[in-house]
Amino acid sequence: MSNSSTNTEFNPLISLNWRGSYLELLDQRLLPESIVMLDLYTPEEIWDSIHSMKVRGAPAIGIAAAFGVVLGAAQYQKEDRAGWLEKVKEVCDYLATSRPTAVNLFWALDRMYGAAVQLSEDSNQLSISALNEGLAQEAIAIRAEDEEVCRQIGEHALPLFEDGMGVLTHCNAGGLATAKYGTATAPMYLAKEQGIHLKIFADETRPVLQGARLTAFELQQAGINVTLITDNMAGMVMSKGWIQAVIVGTDRVAANGDVANKIGTYSVAVLAKAHGIPFYVACPMSTIDLNTPTGAHIPIEERAPEEVTEGFGKRTAPQGIKVFNPAFDVTPNDYVTAIITEKGIVRAPFDQNLKALYSESIS
Amino acid sequence: MSNSSTNTEFNPLISLNWRGSYLELLDQRLLPESIVMLDLYTPEEIWDSIHSMKVRGAPAIGIAAAFGVVLGAAQYQKEDRAGWLEKVKEVCDYLATSRPTAVNLFWALDRMYGAAVQLSEDSNQLSISALNEGLAQEAIAIRAEDEEVCRQIGEHALPLFEDGMGVLTHCNAGGLATAKYGTATAPMYLAKEQGIHLKIFADETRPVLQGARLTAFELQQAGINVTLITDNMAGMVMSKGWIQAVIVGTDRVAANGDVANKIGTYSVAVLAKAHGIPFYVACPMSTIDLNTPTGAHIPIEERAPEEVTEGFGKRTAPQGIKVFNPAFDVTPNDYVTAIITEKGIVRAPFDQNLKALYSESIS
Repeated sequence: MSNSSTNTEFNPLISLNWRGSYLELLDQRLLPESIVMLDLYTPEEIWDSIHSMKVRGAPAIGIAAAFGVVLGAAQYQKEDRAGWLEKVKEVCDYLATSRPTAVNLFWALDRMYGAAVQLSEDSNQLSISALNEGLAQEAIAIRAEDEEVCRQIGEHALPLFEDGMGVLTHCNAGGLATAKYGTATAPMYLAKEQGIHLKIFADETRPVLQGARLTAFELQQAGINVTLITDNMAGMVMSKGWIQAVIVGTDRVAANGDVANKIGTYSVAVLAKAHGIPFYVACPMSTIDLNTPTGAHIPIEERAPEEVTEGFGKRTAPQGIKVFNPAFDVTPNDYVTAIITEKGIVRAPFDQNLKALYSESIS
Repeated sequence: MSNSSTNTEFNPLISLNWRGSYLELLDQRLLPESIVMLDLYTPEEIWDSIHSMKVRGAPAIGIAAAFGVVLGAAQYQKEDRAGWLEKVKEVCDYLATSRPTAVNLFWALDRMYGAAVQLSEDSNQLSISALNEGLAQEAIAIRAEDEEVCRQIGEHALPLFEDGMGVLTHCNAGGLATAKYGTATAPMYLAKEQGIHLKIFADETRPVLQGARLTAFELQQAGINVTLITDNMAGMVMSKGWIQAVIVGTDRVAANGDVANKIGTYSVAVLAKAHGIPFYVACPMSTIDLNTPTGAHIPIEERAPEEVTEGFGKRTAPQGIKVFNPAFDVTPNDYVTAIITEKGIVRAPFDQNLKALYSESIS
């Protein structure tokens, strides 16, 4: 792993680039002050980048993991197809341990392993090197599809927003969290393209400040009207009548429409409901997990207390203090006005309508 | 102003000490990492300490301001009673501009000016030096009464809490915000004295982190079970069933029971209501302002964007980003279960019951 470049200008902001033999990855922990691209050559470097949140955002995690599988498979030296497939399986299992909540990680790893099985079965004339190339094409496809999917999410979401609306978002479900456009931010970028003026409020999103460091940054770069607030101001700005819609991303949607997303999302949803404000969730179909019946079945990652106690460059809480630091929370489906995917908008009853959408999309 | 001492142990934690010719004041901005006592000799130093939040917390601001009047009056050199009274008035008007929201500031200044008028009228045999001594006694009395008042608040509040309860608080309405005991924390300290075990959750309280730096610190020092969370976790811990009561302080209660308090209090109140959790406000009578009809009449201070973007030693948001940074919000009276004062507990209808309580207390 090395720092390939540091500069203070870039446009557009791309969080991942495949370079044939390595993955170039933007270290999102250093934004907005430093723009550092890391060159990752091994699955271990990918694992660490996901685990330590150098890359974050459910779709971007999935894409990074897919390239991690490519990098791991490329380490296999023999011309032994069964051994190669075993290696791919091993790398997938390993990368699956990097973070527990975002289902896109497991979705991408399943898809990569499925592609490996397919390649090794269908193309029994091919060399291991050709299999590796096939695997790289699959990861490249996942990345390309994500870009297209985000744009489609934006197109479906856009009619929900009108010129002059105030829109609150939490965390970063932006271009940095995906291949491009983002999920929750896709309608904001499309609105900008079409001259529709939205006034965005970005929650700073403690403890890791993805809202302040990433969402505020990428929207500002794009020339979108954005105001940064601390998380605890969301209720006040709603009470002032400044917010007409909330839109967030998600790390996993359960079959019943319960939504796991960055810690604090649930509080925002309760506040939105109390103020009669619609609460939208934007995500690709790959974030919807019909195998997870309800939000109670979604594992919630707990992270180190230091994120809370010394996240700002110096210690801001007493030594030895007990800290509760869940990275995510679950918003029950009755707080969700609609889930916006690349296939369209889903409303309650979510259990039926998500299933129906899923069936359509695979038929 | 000088740093008179720096050490890492102290017990009890006292935020203000009058030293006869100067006010010794704990610089709360440096907690919990450094314990620095400042020696303040002039009204200008007091003004700056209030404005820059070296001292904060509505009752402590009032006490600091009272001693600021003493320091200002002491600068008056002539034996001219009318001139002296004019000087006191001037100092009071000046100190009133230090912060706009906490009514205790204006209450303490009014009381000090009233005392000055009384002294100059009643004691026309006394020297200016004796008048100054009388003024100092008044400030000392304000401080002593605050300590007693906080203990009484704790005694009235204590029956609302039962052994084993989870209690959430926001910001610091603790010993540091007052002469001793605090307001919202008074029942916590009294519970501790009586062997009643409460499990406190302290919101860190962005942007200035009074919850992380002050509340978590002083409760930890007192051996009280306290867990630090970010503000956006309040909803999640409530949804887990971990919270049986919320208690906060306040900077001003309007005549109708609307409550101004640290930004984020309103969000906590909405969340408490949504989870069927009682929401208590603890304050001395001096925080209740019958001259302010409703919360809409309470001026809300907006502070510098840097508190949000670079509060703790490093920049965590893009340069030039628009920030909304109100220091307080207003919780409408229908979210307030009860207001706990030194005279007893007030419930709805607040307009009638606050008036009644006030009449009793002055009769």
